[in-house]
Amino acid sequence: MPGAARFEVLVPPPADGSTRARLGRLELPHGVVETPQFMPVGTNATVKTLHPDEIETAGASIVLANTYHLYLRPGHERIERLGGLHKFMGWDKPILTDSGGFQVVSLGDLRVIDDGGVTFKSHLDGSTHRFTPEHSIAVQQALGPDVAVALDHPVFPSSPRRVVEDAMRRTHLWALRSLEAHHRTDQALFGIVQGGLDPELREESARYIASLPFDGINIGGLAGDETPEQRNATLDVTIPFLEGDPRPRYLMGLGSPLDLLEAVHRGVDMFDSVLPARVARNGQLWVPGGRLNLRNEQFRDDPRPVQEGCRCPLCTRFSRAYLSHLFRAKEMLAYRLATCHNLTFTLDFMAGIRAALRAGTFPAQLAELRQSAVRMSGGEGSNKPA
Amino acid sequence: MPGAARFEVLVPPPADGSTRARLGRLELPHGVVETPQFMPVGTNATVKTLHPDEIETAGASIVLANTYHLYLRPGHERIERLGGLHKFMGWDKPILTDSGGFQVVSLGDLRVIDDGGVTFKSHLDGSTHRFTPEHSIAVQQALGPDVAVALDHPVFPSSPRRVVEDAMRRTHLWALRSLEAHHRTDQALFGIVQGGLDPELREESARYIASLPFDGINIGGLAGDETPEQRNATLDVTIPFLEGDPRPRYLMGLGSPLDLLEAVHRGVDMFDSVLPARVARNGQLWVPGGRLNLRNEQFRDDPRPVQEGCRCPLCTRFSRAYLSHLFRAKEMLAYRLATCHNLTFTLDFMAGIRAALRAGTFPAQLAELRQSAVRMSGGEGSNKPA
Repeated sequence: MPGAARFEVLVPPPADGSTRARLGRLELPHGVVETPQFMPVGTNATVKTLHPDEIETAGASIVLANTYHLYLRPGHERIERLGGLHKFMGWDKPILTDSGGFQVVSLGDLRVIDDGGVTFKSHLDGSTHRFTPEHSIAVQQALGPDVAVALDHPVFPSSPRRVVEDAMRRTHLWALRSLEAHHRTDQALFGIVQGGLDPELREESARYIASLPFDGINIGGLAGDETPEQRNATLDVTIPFLEGDPRPRYLMGLGSPLDLLEAVHRGVDMFDSVLPARVARNGQLWVPGGRLNLRNEQFRDDPRPVQEGCRCPLCTRFSRAYLSHLFRAKEMLAYRLATCHNLTFTLDFMAGIRAALRAGTFPAQLAELRQSAVRMSGGEGSNKPA
Repeated sequence: MPGAARFEVLVPPPADGSTRARLGRLELPHGVVETPQFMPVGTNATVKTLHPDEIETAGASIVLANTYHLYLRPGHERIERLGGLHKFMGWDKPILTDSGGFQVVSLGDLRVIDDGGVTFKSHLDGSTHRFTPEHSIAVQQALGPDVAVALDHPVFPSSPRRVVEDAMRRTHLWALRSLEAHHRTDQALFGIVQGGLDPELREESARYIASLPFDGINIGGLAGDETPEQRNATLDVTIPFLEGDPRPRYLMGLGSPLDLLEAVHRGVDMFDSVLPARVARNGQLWVPGGRLNLRNEQFRDDPRPVQEGCRCPLCTRFSRAYLSHLFRAKEMLAYRLATCHNLTFTLDFMAGIRAALRAGTFPAQLAELRQSAVRMSGGEGSNKPA
């Protein structure tokens, strides 16, 4: 709803065209989000293993929660009765919910899509449900996040053009219906651009979604099965049609340092991904010099912190040897501490990008940042979960 | 080692014999432990799910770690190389390690006991190991807790008298050998009384163990398959032989509020148990009015905290409805928050007992405390894990 979100570009991209990266400030009902920004994912109204204080200490100013999951359990009406999602999960800073489209469409054989909406079976108990654009909005209005997102029809980037075109057309229909259904004045609504890897469809979709009174523009249909090169090329043919648009741009599903950097460079402001937390739970710790697999033998006797100088609850108190022991003993504290570290690392990486943008040194630092991000990503340049 | 522990009885039991409960103060190399006291269990050098700061905030002044588990993984020599157990697990307050006897003997078919020691197979990989009194002491000296415990031979309280007597005789032999093997001057050593439910054997064992220069006296062989009445009767025939002894008494393995209260009343100073944390992970929350099973349907819509006025991280921020949701979604945050609550509850219960002892009102308050403990224990008066 216009007015629920106020976005300001504090440092626009330089006139020389060396980058489309920009520094921004998004004001939402529950607080301010500096951009570019990464949003930790709290699928079930909890960022897995963490207390809200730890999420805040890690540096998060906004978290994402999943509409599909919360609709099924504990139920959006229950959360509404209990005072809304912020109160429910004990987090009083901004929250964004996705539309449920990605999860529902990802159910494969368990769903049928028509122009009216998506009929699907619950992954929990096999019961049948239907999401329409109107129902997705109703669920998100009941949940009460700062930002809701319009239902879309995502497809694999590699899909045939007629599939991509059909999904785009449906996404545009649903965008209009979502806007008509949305009425909460204390909640922003973002719309989603689709169009796969096709420059013509991306242009059409960007122009159309940007013509509607959304509070922000999501770049959908990426972070799928495309290569990083295809993704970058697609951003390069999409963002120009949003140039000068006074709204934040959000690319759903990117989480590796290199992916984040390349997308910021191409003009994206907001991101979310389970990647940093999921790889952490698998024992992969991100550090400036590369990635450490804490399950490797070499760390069992290593008295050093995971990352020298890191401010997180893992690195300020425990050794690599202790974390390695906790992973081997399958102790829950391992998953907590590792998640704290990787989220702190990712949020600090974004803070470093913002500092460079504020200082006007981002174009000059880009090569160095890219080199560092390549090392950190350690060959994991894409968003595929480990 | 005499000198590593200094125990002082601050408020002795009243002369009228209404209770043997006493208030004490145990000074150890890493800090002071007020008694009666409960020790949370950190089997694998971590109190399951919790950060050391949370253990401290819950009110713990000492934790227990398991020699058997740490010997097998990550290995006592590794922990010694890394600077000892305190540094390894990030906990700089007192630690007590058990002797490994209970775990090893509990292996059943996987172990053979002779007068020399216990030969057993690891539950992790089936490899063969041998614990002698000397080796248990060596392992505990390498780990470096404030308090080590002599290897004993525990048996089920219901065992035939000749089995109990044989185990007691062996425990006494091992007590002497443990004292001879122990040389760390910054580490206390406790010895264990055995004797099953037999008053004569208990007297013999209490007199013998008390005659040796241990820093504290463990009451072993209880918290097994005995009834609470049998346990209480056994304490009533054991403690008198320790009366006037200037050392702390520790009953291994008790954790329910009622069990703790009855043992304090009979003159025990220290306790440990996995019970509060284990039932918490199963969704059982202890509150003054009884026990709440957070998996029950009724809590899904309950906006109240688990316990009104409780100071723990669960009750000060989240509703029963949210915790119920986290348990249903099998989210790790559920286990963390529930563990924090039950440990806070148990430690506050012990603090309440200490306050009554300090005020001299314990005998007058006993009936009321007992009634309250019965409600809290909710029929779970024994130590059997849920």
